[in-house]
Amino acid sequence: MIAIDWGTSSFRAYRIGAGGKVLDRRSAARGILTVEGAAFADVLAAEVADWGAEPGPVLMSGMIGSRQGWREVPYLDCPADPAALARACGEVRWGEGRRALIVPGLTCRDRHGVPDVMRGEETQILGALDTIGATATVCLPGTHSKYASLINGRIEGFETHMTGEVFGVLWRHSILGRLGGTGEVADMAAFEAGVDRAGQDQGLLHHVFGVRARGLFGEMPAESLASYLSGILIGHEIRAATRAGPVAVIGAPELAALYRRAFQRRGIEASVVPGEPAAAGLWRIAEIMGAAA
Amino acid sequence: MIAIDWGTSSFRAYRIGAGGKVLDRRSAARGILTVEGAAFADVLAAEVADWGAEPGPVLMSGMIGSRQGWREVPYLDCPADPAALARACGEVRWGEGRRALIVPGLTCRDRHGVPDVMRGEETQILGALDTIGATATVCLPGTHSKYASLINGRIEGFETHMTGEVFGVLWRHSILGRLGGTGEVADMAAFEAGVDRAGQDQGLLHHVFGVRARGLFGEMPAESLASYLSGILIGHEIRAATRAGPVAVIGAPELAALYRRAFQRRGIEASVVPGEPAAAGLWRIAEIMGAAA
Repeated sequence: MIAIDWGTSSFRAYRIGAGGKVLDRRSAARGILTVEGAAFADVLAAEVADWGAEPGPVLMSGMIGSRQGWREVPYLDCPADPAALARACGEVRWGEGRRALIVPGLTCRDRHGVPDVMRGEETQILGALDTIGATATVCLPGTHSKYASLINGRIEGFETHMTGEVFGVLWRHSILGRLGGTGEVADMAAFEAGVDRAGQDQGLLHHVFGVRARGLFGEMPAESLASYLSGILIGHEIRAATRAGPVAVIGAPELAALYRRAFQRRGIEASVVPGEPAAAGLWRIAEIMGAAA
Repeated sequence: MIAIDWGTSSFRAYRIGAGGKVLDRRSAARGILTVEGAAFADVLAAEVADWGAEPGPVLMSGMIGSRQGWREVPYLDCPADPAALARACGEVRWGEGRRALIVPGLTCRDRHGVPDVMRGEETQILGALDTIGATATVCLPGTHSKYASLINGRIEGFETHMTGEVFGVLWRHSILGRLGGTGEVADMAAFEAGVDRAGQDQGLLHHVFGVRARGLFGEMPAESLASYLSGILIGHEIRAATRAGPVAVIGAPELAALYRRAFQRRGIEASVVPGEPAAAGLWRIAEIMGAAA
């Protein structure tokens, strides 16, 4: 089968053989926002052309199923198990009479009735089930970090924190980025000082101003300020989202390691899920459909 | 005397007569960031030219005393009283042998040792003393909202929350502003819903993502989302900054009224300080110097 993790800014394709083994992989900067004129079928065909004309089913997850994607596949309500996700896939056509299936995203409401959404992360969580077990707290850090509660193999609910995007806009567009520094999160002492700061009173909006004040007084070198800011934001995210560990972290290795460090700093056990969870999740859904190669 | 409140984006001048009465006032979009080549003396001369050649002393407050301003006047440590501010003014020359004095900003450290700074607000607080009394909690909402603790006429300490700037960058540069709407905070029901949301658990980074989720599901009209976001941020600011009222709010009438509403929504007594506190504060400092007209 061919498994595609197609997000806002990136496109990742996997050719998967018997037993779920990833035979080949590729990625391209062809996220859905880069695809003009909704030519998703053309992009897909071009990217996987050399994987043969009959490579079995194609299964996709991520923002490709959103309103801005190829076809809007309605969000599925939580709790949701792998079988429900498999049943709710939406179909699209491409190439010469070929079809592809898009895994739906999930929605839930918190206890105050406010809705939340995810697209793509549900598939990564399913792909990590073998590693993390059927009941776990899962953290998927990123632009919009997700915390999901997994019970008996079902995604019970989740919450999103806008951490990565808030970091980006504050560094690029607010006064905080004007003190110098590259914006790279590389100073681990400053990062941990930020995580510690998030544990104090006075709130996030005060703590982020402290980045400027400390920079202004030269108490922290300019090149460390982005690390400090990142620690403050991730620290606030973890403080609000996680009451207890252990937490399984799914993400790109560098970011996942950063989060693991922040969890540990807050005394919460965390482990990083290895492998390629998106590919594994798409394989699992294809197996349920009886459509796996 | 001439009193100037010269900030990052605006310039406000007051001609003050006997007893502190404001005889004339003007404002211009000549904030320090608009002044090229550090030609502050020229801008000042042009703006107050018609107020006569001998109008008494000129006293200025705000970012004009910062590193990016006319002359960097060092921050004064808290606690600070009006006499200390008067003593620490920095002098600049302009026109034909004329001088002007710049009120210093203040700095303090919170109990965790993190520094904070203000420039301009200290003068407004002094200008409001007659209205609010010598011991009070003062809130100065804005791009960088300030909460100051006033005891026996001294500014004991303060804290800054980056609320206004975070609102601006999130609305203009993040996914939150892409759901439509003008960015105007005009829907008071949505604003109050945001203030209430800030009182719930899960934290600011989750609450702001809810703005998107509610917009996505059409649960709140696009034109109300900025009001909701503003309520969330101001609600978090107040939640973190204010343990009890009453609070005296110093600010532009519309913004101060919005904050008063948020305080009341959180059950905190708040009143808006009338008049022109910057002009009154500069007059008070000039009086202490024995330099008032």
